[in-house]
Amino acid sequence: MHFFSDNATPVCPDVMVAMMAADRADHGYDGDQWSARLNGAFSDLFGTSATVLWIATGTAANSIALACLCPPYGGIICHDEAHIAVDECGAPGFYTHGASLMTLPGQGAKLSPDAVTERLRAIRPDVHQVPARAISITQATEYGLAYTPDEVAALGAVAQSEGLGFHMDGARFANAVAHLGCHPGDVTWRAGVDILSFGCVKNGGMIAEALVFFGDRAEGRAAEAARWRKRAGHLSSKGRYLAAQLLAMVEGDLWLRNGRAANAAARALAAGAERRLIHPVEANELFIRLTAGEAAALRAQGFDFHDWGEGAARLVTNWSQDAASVQPLADALRALAA
Amino acid sequence: MHFFSDNATPVCPDVMVAMMAADRADHGYDGDQWSARLNGAFSDLFGTSATVLWIATGTAANSIALACLCPPYGGIICHDEAHIAVDECGAPGFYTHGASLMTLPGQGAKLSPDAVTERLRAIRPDVHQVPARAISITQATEYGLAYTPDEVAALGAVAQSEGLGFHMDGARFANAVAHLGCHPGDVTWRAGVDILSFGCVKNGGMIAEALVFFGDRAEGRAAEAARWRKRAGHLSSKGRYLAAQLLAMVEGDLWLRNGRAANAAARALAAGAERRLIHPVEANELFIRLTAGEAAALRAQGFDFHDWGEGAARLVTNWSQDAASVQPLADALRALAA
Amino acid sequence: MHFFSDNATPVCPDVMVAMMAADRADHGYDGDQWSARLNGAFSDLFGTSATVLWIATGTAANSIALACLCPPYGGIICHDEAHIAVDECGAPGFYTHGASLMTLPGQGAKLSPDAVTERLRAIRPDVHQVPARAISITQATEYGLAYTPDEVAALGAVAQSEGLGFHMDGARFANAVAHLGCHPGDVTWRAGVDILSFGCVKNGGMIAEALVFFGDRAEGRAAEAARWRKRAGHLSSKGRYLAAQLLAMVEGDLWLRNGRAANAAARALAAGAERRLIHPVEANELFIRLTAGEAAALRAQGFDFHDWGEGAARLVTNWSQDAASVQPLADALRALAA
Amino acid sequence: MHFFSDNATPVCPDVMVAMMAADRADHGYDGDQWSARLNGAFSDLFGTSATVLWIATGTAANSIALACLCPPYGGIICHDEAHIAVDECGAPGFYTHGASLMTLPGQGAKLSPDAVTERLRAIRPDVHQVPARAISITQATEYGLAYTPDEVAALGAVAQSEGLGFHMDGARFANAVAHLGCHPGDVTWRAGVDILSFGCVKNGGMIAEALVFFGDRAEGRAAEAARWRKRAGHLSSKGRYLAAQLLAMVEGDLWLRNGRAANAAARALAAGAERRLIHPVEANELFIRLTAGEAAALRAQGFDFHDWGEGAARLVTNWSQDAASVQPLADALRALAA
Repeated sequence: MHFFSDNATPVCPDVMVAMMAADRADHGYDGDQWSARLNGAFSDLFGTSATVLWIATGTAANSIALACLCPPYGGIICHDEAHIAVDECGAPGFYTHGASLMTLPGQGAKLSPDAVTERLRAIRPDVHQVPARAISITQATEYGLAYTPDEVAALGAVAQSEGLGFHMDGARFANAVAHLGCHPGDVTWRAGVDILSFGCVKNGGMIAEALVFFGDRAEGRAAEAARWRKRAGHLSSKGRYLAAQLLAMVEGDLWLRNGRAANAAARALAAGAERRLIHPVEANELFIRLTAGEAAALRAQGFDFHDWGEGAARLVTNWSQDAASVQPLADALRALAA
Repeated sequence: MHFFSDNATPVCPDVMVAMMAADRADHGYDGDQWSARLNGAFSDLFGTSATVLWIATGTAANSIALACLCPPYGGIICHDEAHIAVDECGAPGFYTHGASLMTLPGQGAKLSPDAVTERLRAIRPDVHQVPARAISITQATEYGLAYTPDEVAALGAVAQSEGLGFHMDGARFANAVAHLGCHPGDVTWRAGVDILSFGCVKNGGMIAEALVFFGDRAEGRAAEAARWRKRAGHLSSKGRYLAAQLLAMVEGDLWLRNGRAANAAARALAAGAERRLIHPVEANELFIRLTAGEAAALRAQGFDFHDWGEGAARLVTNWSQDAASVQPLADALRALAA
Repeated sequence: MHFFSDNATPVCPDVMVAMMAADRADHGYDGDQWSARLNGAFSDLFGTSATVLWIATGTAANSIALACLCPPYGGIICHDEAHIAVDECGAPGFYTHGASLMTLPGQGAKLSPDAVTERLRAIRPDVHQVPARAISITQATEYGLAYTPDEVAALGAVAQSEGLGFHMDGARFANAVAHLGCHPGDVTWRAGVDILSFGCVKNGGMIAEALVFFGDRAEGRAAEAARWRKRAGHLSSKGRYLAAQLLAMVEGDLWLRNGRAANAAARALAAGAERRLIHPVEANELFIRLTAGEAAALRAQGFDFHDWGEGAARLVTNWSQDAASVQPLADALRALAA
Repeated sequence: MHFFSDNATPVCPDVMVAMMAADRADHGYDGDQWSARLNGAFSDLFGTSATVLWIATGTAANSIALACLCPPYGGIICHDEAHIAVDECGAPGFYTHGASLMTLPGQGAKLSPDAVTERLRAIRPDVHQVPARAISITQATEYGLAYTPDEVAALGAVAQSEGLGFHMDGARFANAVAHLGCHPGDVTWRAGVDILSFGCVKNGGMIAEALVFFGDRAEGRAAEAARWRKRAGHLSSKGRYLAAQLLAMVEGDLWLRNGRAANAAARALAAGAERRLIHPVEANELFIRLTAGEAAALRAQGFDFHDWGEGAARLVTNWSQDAASVQPLADALRALAA
């Protein structure tokens, strides 16, 4: 049983069925009937008018969102362990034509409003220094923590008062909302988020994420994003297969059910590894202290996962699991502890 | 019955089956067993050692290829109706960071060695002018013509003697090879092509094209292309679904069978529209003279297609058709002519 | 006596004196008292409120202007022999992050409104094609012709009705205005020009051109241009030496006097070469038919100039000349003709 | 008497005289006789074959150097207070097309080999992370410290063993060498530096810096840099005025004399402010503790300078000063201390 990454898991059957249903002739690019339903489906989900584009990967979604919010000479405030900063080979720099990432430390890979404000205060308002133009946060964070609606809103308030765009990388948005138990609008547009990268692939999709634009400027930004999408070679010619994945997720509650399942599995593991936890377990990732010997012992039992530096490991659960299915690893962890 | 575009057609069942077979847990990105088979499969197909990357779209494949061959201050010689020049929203400019397209006219959307040479002669070798660094051709061309091995080799010779990279946009490569009846190596690496965008989507795939690197510099360029692919957000996290589509095409002869089927359909239509042809029909596209009244008459009979300016139309056939299945349109065309 | 280029000539003494006068301690960058006078001096000259930035070269001025008017995915309509298209090593592509130049033919290197309109009509309004966003013309043109106020206004009207920005490369603006005898506002803001690259170097300066922003959006665009200027390394730390050159030109009528002198010299040469002229002589450039033997004969007499392809030559006069000083070449040309 | 910046000072008379001497007709761009002497003059100065380009500003010099050493997907290791990181409005991101600055802390704005090595160790060698490709240091540093030959060589050794390019921002190179008393080659090419931005403007020039390329790859890189220079609009059409400034500096020992003068002035001030020094004074900058009241007292006596955050100030001396000329401020500082 592997706990490498939610990417390593197969496609969720409901998603695959939806793709099969879209396997028929229709207009190319995003001129098809599935793509046409995206705005409505996401508007219903978020309880507000949203404009939505499908896109193949989270890296592209994040980067295009940032290109809509930040000019080449601007800066994007993010955590220094943010995926956009450390795992996208500089994609934001590519799409924004050289904008700067202004990285900040923060517990559990979370940005705090105070840290952001302090960073902003240090920028001289002359042409020599890069002006901040956007904030980007990850929900759930790179350490599996969920920003609460209040936490997001506090950052949103800073963004608004400083005239910054506000982007949320929601690669594991479903897991965060499943944990928070809130309405998805509560941690996005109601809290000031302008653009959300809504994750689908890690949550059971094959190759589709959604760029969701909120607010008065949604349509204008989405129109510009559509240009970036084409220009970046991301306007797939058979877009219906991407749209179908997203609709399968959000026209019902599949996205949330899958998120809950993965979270439940993570909680079950956490219960077996309570004293080892480096971060609280709120989504579907566990970061635990684990010696090399213990790691070897678990692997000998057929469990696999990534080491996380010296003496630690990262375990990722996914939509196809639940508390029961991961119980063997939970037990093995508990046994180690003894 | 529609003849809009090969993109409007469903996925070929053999490809879909291959994707289903890849629907299991494996390593993410391109660390999976399907991706690992690409180099071998394409090397076998082309009869030479090739290095291969999957990528979601032809636009991305073309642009990354060009970024490997041309610096930002360089120029890329292509036809003035090339897809890269007129239908990719400036994607080559994005990926190459501003390289110039040097467009040339030419019968049937083909570049001629003489025109290329003349264009090169007109460039002063100083820093004020953009130096040409690459040639890009489309196989089959935007007007459905196939470059013969000799024609490609003549351009390849110019590229080599002038120190230019040589790229082939093979969105309809299968149709070209099916028409030529040659070995796929004859119109690529043996003729001097450095990088081929091997089309799969128009030929029955869902969302996957192949970037095929030939020659001594193949590995180095592919390594750089892998950086661009990641940086552009094109490194899908479940790459096995893309690799599987390509393998389904090239581990057998599906790619060629599909190309032949589409070509046969096009020839059948051409036989019914002989006097209307604006260009010879060699691949799966027909460009025909057709008055507005004639177009309306055909549409009234249930055939649909794109107008091509005033008094002309474009008909595209696809892998799911053959001579028999398009006979009704062939007959309708012939009837018009009477 | 050389007629290579106005760039080969020394700095005009009045400009040099002004630079000496600025050779004292003051604030760095553009915080000095000379830079502070630019907006006023140019507003007076053009008879409207203008916002002005000094910049070292015409290439940088042109490119920054275009970056203010055109997004990376947009297109800039210009003549196919425009300096920005053929003599700036792709600088517009660099500054605009890959925007496309949409080049058009036209007599005497002039764009015509009809040609522009026809080009615009050919662009499909979808995301696959690059949308035009700006028009750029050269005043005087690369063949030494001056657009009349009416001609500029006709292009300005197209720009306005199509929502395009309108840039004028005025490397030889003084020569054009000297020829036209009009108010400088008549061929710029009154005719719809948004941004003018006001040439100073060819007209007797050392290293300074002016970017002049007109209209309602002047301040906003100039503020953005100031970012580009810094980001491109063009914010000289001792900007007063650049500002002083521009002020020397425009606080009096030096710019126009210099332009008139060069034009008078050109007219004198033209009188000696009447039957040889390839283009009418309106500014300070002559393009003449001249055999290799004739060219050699002139060079043997001590005159030098650039060949212009086979059987032709380009002669450029400059601010330091006048009709009398170039009479020897005029005579020599006339003698050849005999 | 002001101590704002070395940029606020007039041009050194010897430089101005040299510019006057170049004020005659010659070939444009860098085809003139002054530009032709640069390689030789700098090769003599550094005791090795060097290839040299003039360029208007330090920001442009630094950025073009980095573009020669680092691809868009690469990273440049520098100090987190480096000029390229905090005072160039993202220029390196513009010229490198989005490369990442990898900033590190370090005493006195110096990078240490250990910190660099540790940073390199933390980068995974996969396509997800940005690979480091260059190191950039400032000589003297932003806090006025000079890297010794050994310190540079230690970083050079890291660069070499890791395959990184090595750039030195020498905006105050003269001051550093004047302090070190070493041969200029000892802190550059002999210590592994590939490209030096040789400062001239702060040291008495008007508008010219030198990009100096060392080593086997010097010519190839300089040829590429010449493309960037043109493409960025930095190829001034009357380049002889820039070349002349540089030659005035380095064909004799003006560069060093000027650096020594500024340093002597700084040492004199330091002697008056010994207990206030935040950093040792090695070049021409002092960073001192100074209360708001003390600052006001000095300003009341006619001395001016920049505050440096709360309770501190920065004083910059320049080529036109010496120990005697700044004695009044030294005395005033000493008086304060009492």
